[in-house]
Amino acid sequence: MQMIQILITGGTFDKSYNHLKGNLFFKKTHVPEMLTRSKSRLNVNVKTLMMIDSLEMTENDIEIIIKECLNSESKRIVITHGTDTMVRTAKKIEKKIKDKTIVLTGAMIPYAFGSSSDGFFNLGSALSFVQVLKKGVYIAMNGQYFKCDNVKKNMEKGFFE
Amino acid sequence: MQMIQILITGGTFDKSYNHLKGNLFFKKTHVPEMLTRSKSRLNVNVKTLMMIDSLEMTENDIEIIIKECLNSESKRIVITHGTDTMVRTAKKIEKKIKDKTIVLTGAMIPYAFGSSSDGFFNLGSALSFVQVLKKGVYIAMNGQYFKCDNVKKNMEKGFFE
Amino acid sequence: MQMIQILITGGTFDKSYNHLKGNLFFKKTHVPEMLTRSKSRLNVNVKTLMMIDSLEMTENDIEIIIKECLNSESKRIVITHGTDTMVRTAKKIEKKIKDKTIVLTGAMIPYAFGSSSDGFFNLGSALSFVQVLKKGVYIAMNGQYFKCDNVKKNMEKGFFE
Amino acid sequence: MQMIQILITGGTFDKSYNHLKGNLFFKKTHVPEMLTRSKSRLNVNVKTLMMIDSLEMTENDIEIIIKECLNSESKRIVITHGTDTMVRTAKKIEKKIKDKTIVLTGAMIPYAFGSSSDGFFNLGSALSFVQVLKKGVYIAMNGQYFKCDNVKKNMEKGFFE
Repeated sequence: MQMIQILITGGTFDKSYNHLKGNLFFKKTHVPEMLTRSKSRLNVNVKTLMMIDSLEMTENDIEIIIKECLNSESKRIVITHGTDTMVRTAKKIEKKIKDKTIVLTGAMIPYAFGSSSDGFFNLGSALSFVQVLKKGVYIAMNGQYFKCDNVKKNMEKGFFE
Repeated sequence: MQMIQILITGGTFDKSYNHLKGNLFFKKTHVPEMLTRSKSRLNVNVKTLMMIDSLEMTENDIEIIIKECLNSESKRIVITHGTDTMVRTAKKIEKKIKDKTIVLTGAMIPYAFGSSSDGFFNLGSALSFVQVLKKGVYIAMNGQYFKCDNVKKNMEKGFFE
Repeated sequence: MQMIQILITGGTFDKSYNHLKGNLFFKKTHVPEMLTRSKSRLNVNVKTLMMIDSLEMTENDIEIIIKECLNSESKRIVITHGTDTMVRTAKKIEKKIKDKTIVLTGAMIPYAFGSSSDGFFNLGSALSFVQVLKKGVYIAMNGQYFKCDNVKKNMEKGFFE
Repeated sequence: MQMIQILITGGTFDKSYNHLKGNLFFKKTHVPEMLTRSKSRLNVNVKTLMMIDSLEMTENDIEIIIKECLNSESKRIVITHGTDTMVRTAKKIEKKIKDKTIVLTGAMIPYAFGSSSDGFFNLGSALSFVQVLKKGVYIAMNGQYFKCDNVKKNMEKGFFE
């Protein structure tokens, strides 16, 4: 079975609650425990590139993501990413990489929020789409996939369209 | 957007806990609340055909499922199903239906079991595969999809291969 | 059975996640659903006085709480409250009210955070202590109860002592 | 701080889901992880005596529980127990032990069932009552405490009265 590369960048998806300060922060990614829980038998490699809010993602951060996608031996890559700038990052990746299937996903509610989070569903969705979509850069959110040049986040309603 | 038909048959996926009797039973499907939680924007129609353990599924039950698949106006159908006889049902559907994409899914741990269940991930996975796979009958479990004539459940280890 | 008054003031206990803005906010109290889940058969009356962070609680807010405690027909009162200024509020109540058993409680992690929150345990603890402790103002946190004049929150470690 | 002895006997409280067989079974107690989650600062000692359904509890099992209560250095003991025969066990303990505060608790829905279980609330309740009730044998369920000679489980409705 082909290996799927999973690259972690942070975003709402992976936010935790800091009970000393009473705010949200990044501790470590929940993706490995999510994979265990999913009983996934996929051949994956998980690599954390950064743990940041996507509103704070710089050009340099995007360069790091693109470089990792290029260097990965895998042709199929899932990237977890904050939703606010997910489309921007996807478009920048698409300009540089043409021969891989790359799917960005995230969450509207942190996985750590338990029974209200969409994150676990989205991970299942992104890992499925990445196996079957042809080369290109996509966003998998709200049960759907979108070509990165044909989507935007509706900031008022909180979904992609 | 094309409508996706979701057919509910029960299985571990949808088992609830009966606190008066101390055992597992079927109350009603969790799929609508799962769809709300997922923030899915898919155009779906959910129909409960039965709520049974797949070990108790009769030939007649399978006939009902096949008839619903045939009668549905949708070309893309997800069926929730107990894992024990999922492959058998899939093969029987495949003999009768050639022109639709049908994906069966389920869970190893009931959705009602909260943070240990694989069900929410599997629903995300099945709803994604059904949008992009070509005509045929598939099983979506463990993050993967399988053609129904090329898979079995490993009863000892609890996964599909 | 004697009625127990439950007064809601907000605090971490009742914070929800705003998926449009990506931050924590107050929507409505989780106490009624927590009581249903607990299968409590207590005779309680739940009243929301305010939904605020305890760091933002003013002298006027504390006056409102004290007035409600005085006016309640119940001799046994539980107050949910943010942990940061819980001790201060408790001391101010104690100066004014001598003939009731009043227990303040809260959470270090919001109830909405699911399987990591201490809130449900704390509610069980506070509702138990309030039934058996003699007149006075107490704080119930970390499985313990404290007289309000003999406790402080350890801000670095996040518990009461 | 006085040490509280916690004795584990199983019951619905501690049932887990066996995903290979599709039924409920006993693996190991959830009490230590519940204590961590509660941020309890109590001085407790947790000892697993057995992991059984209370309908299968024999006279010999009850003897073991009584012996442990007698031998424990602690004067304050919480026992987790299945609800079906909780009252019977409590009464037998009370015949033999007069000088300790002993509180039995359990759950109507397994702790492993996540956001629908009453178990975490009940543990908070039992650990609170045990600190303040005078010598005797009690049952803590549904937010209340009962003297063991003045309570029965309402089997039809699923609560104690």
